Amino acid sequence: MITTDVAADFDLKNYLTTQGAEVEAALEQSLTVVYPETIYESMRYSLMAGGKRLRPILCLATCELVGGTLAQAMPTACALEMVHTMSLIHDDLPAMDNDDYRRGQLTNHKVYGDDVAILAGDALLAYAFEFIADRTEGVPPKAVLEVIRRLGRAVGAAGLVGGQIVDLASEGNPDTSIETLNFIHMHKTAALLEVSVVAGAVLAGADTDTVERLSRYANNIGLAFQIVDDVLDITSTQEELGKSIGKDVQAQKATYPSIWGLDESRKQADTLIQAAKDELSPLGPSQQPLVAIADYIIARTH
Amino acid sequence: MITTDVAADFDLKNYLTTQGAEVEAALEQSLTVVYPETIYESMRYSLMAGGKRLRPILCLATCELVGGTLAQAMPTACALEMVHTMSLIHDDLPAMDNDDYRRGQLTNHKVYGDDVAILAGDALLAYAFEFIADRTEGVPPKAVLEVIRRLGRAVGAAGLVGGQIVDLASEGNPDTSIETLNFIHMHKTAALLEVSVVAGAVLAGADTDTVERLSRYANNIGLAFQIVDDVLDITSTQEELGKSIGKDVQAQKATYPSIWGLDESRKQADTLIQAAKDELSPLGPSQQPLVAIADYIIARTH
Repeated sequence: MITTDVAADFDLKNYLTTQGAEVEAALEQSLTVVYPETIYESMRYSLMAGGKRLRPILCLATCELVGGTLAQAMPTACALEMVHTMSLIHDDLPAMDNDDYRRGQLTNHKVYGDDVAILAGDALLAYAFEFIADRTEGVPPKAVLEVIRRLGRAVGAAGLVGGQIVDLASEGNPDTSIETLNFIHMHKTAALLEVSVVAGAVLAGADTDTVERLSRYANNIGLAFQIVDDVLDITSTQEELGKSIGKDVQAQKATYPSIWGLDESRKQADTLIQAAKDELSPLGPSQQPLVAIADYIIARTH
Repeated sequence: MITTDVAADFDLKNYLTTQGAEVEAALEQSLTVVYPETIYESMRYSLMAGGKRLRPILCLATCELVGGTLAQAMPTACALEMVHTMSLIHDDLPAMDNDDYRRGQLTNHKVYGDDVAILAGDALLAYAFEFIADRTEGVPPKAVLEVIRRLGRAVGAAGLVGGQIVDLASEGNPDTSIETLNFIHMHKTAALLEVSVVAGAVLAGADTDTVERLSRYANNIGLAFQIVDDVLDITSTQEELGKSIGKDVQAQKATYPSIWGLDESRKQADTLIQAAKDELSPLGPSQQPLVAIADYIIARTH
């Protein structure tokens, strides 16, 4: 397979560390604490809480893949992490999933209170759009607007929020259909990954065919990512995963393994990852990071 | 006074009705209920709940004042109402002001639950930016980006959210200083009015001097609006105001009358309105709606 050869001599770990450090530095500078300090501290508390920075890294990768620069995509990369952070802060609220811990630290509302946490999410969401519009340089304004349009759609009722609504409605119903489960994860997880991947390419002036290939790549890895997550929830030890496991089973939540079983779930994830990589094959050697990221997602199950 | 003469033969009531109907029709079409219906119904429930549509009307007015068309500003006008609606939905939540009624109907979370209400606000905020980027036609992309930048800033920590944070922190403290009170209302109320007024002008290609005049006009009427609200909270009967009154006093909340007294508050509001109208005087006959709106704000006190 061409795609496998391309990725074979690519050092993903080093790539993720290098690009992750660039993102971390840009995020660090994106938000200054001024009066009224509480809101900025609360926003920074969750924004700077670590994580893989996968969405920004994907955005930077596709911008470079299409011949753009890191600088062109960095404001959008930061905005993607702001939006992702907003969704986590609101998701953790008592009115939603009611989680006390996230990435090993207290959730935003446990530190700042529910009111501040709601407002910090709102402020991060608004700032994400402001940040793209204000900071993007060296990109035609029309392309920047296209990124904003796609990001808004990925976050709103047609994207992430829509997925969360169906997820909430399916809670406690282990008979959820595979179509509903796919809807949830295509919207709750894949939509933001999709715009992360596509935005970088749009900023670099990619043609329609490339944008569509990258969109399919992203949707495939997004769904595979969720299947792998569901599998890991059953097969991993708590120590390996760094979070409480078996939570889905306890919550009587429909998952891919609960519908397909473990073996079929792994097989479906494999198929999605292969389909994702096949989309990349015409894109030349700069596809390496995206191939390696796809391989990395699936490698987690085995 | 020139400005008073300009407004004298202007039929504001008719203007607000006509422009309000245009906004209402555009909002009606802005949001279609599709699967998952709950989120769209929840968004529409609050978005279509009436109200004066003052922000959209201001946006349309300044676009026409500078020589633009209704069509150029309508997507932004709708987006402003989406953002305003988001702030009301989140503000009414139990974790915030915990209000059961708004505009004579149950608040969003009382009908749909706290989780859906949080998500409906998020979706409206994201959709506002998508809507401007997607629907604005006949405007240079650079001007559209400028509107998005200003709207993001007006809603986030440097605007509305920042005002709410200070407001929350001042609760139960009747000794709040006039500087803090001004900060709260310049951010919580005036910032969104300011971008409403300025956005219409930016979309129509206004020069910097006009944008700055309109910005000062908006900040002045925004603060006057709040002072008048505080005065009415004390002087009106519940029937006249259509909402529960004396709420500020009960909540031991600092207000303009609690610091200045009623007479001085009215005087300060008058001064702000006059200053607002003075900013408009070089702008020619199409300033009429803005002058009349300024007069209308102050007329409510007497």
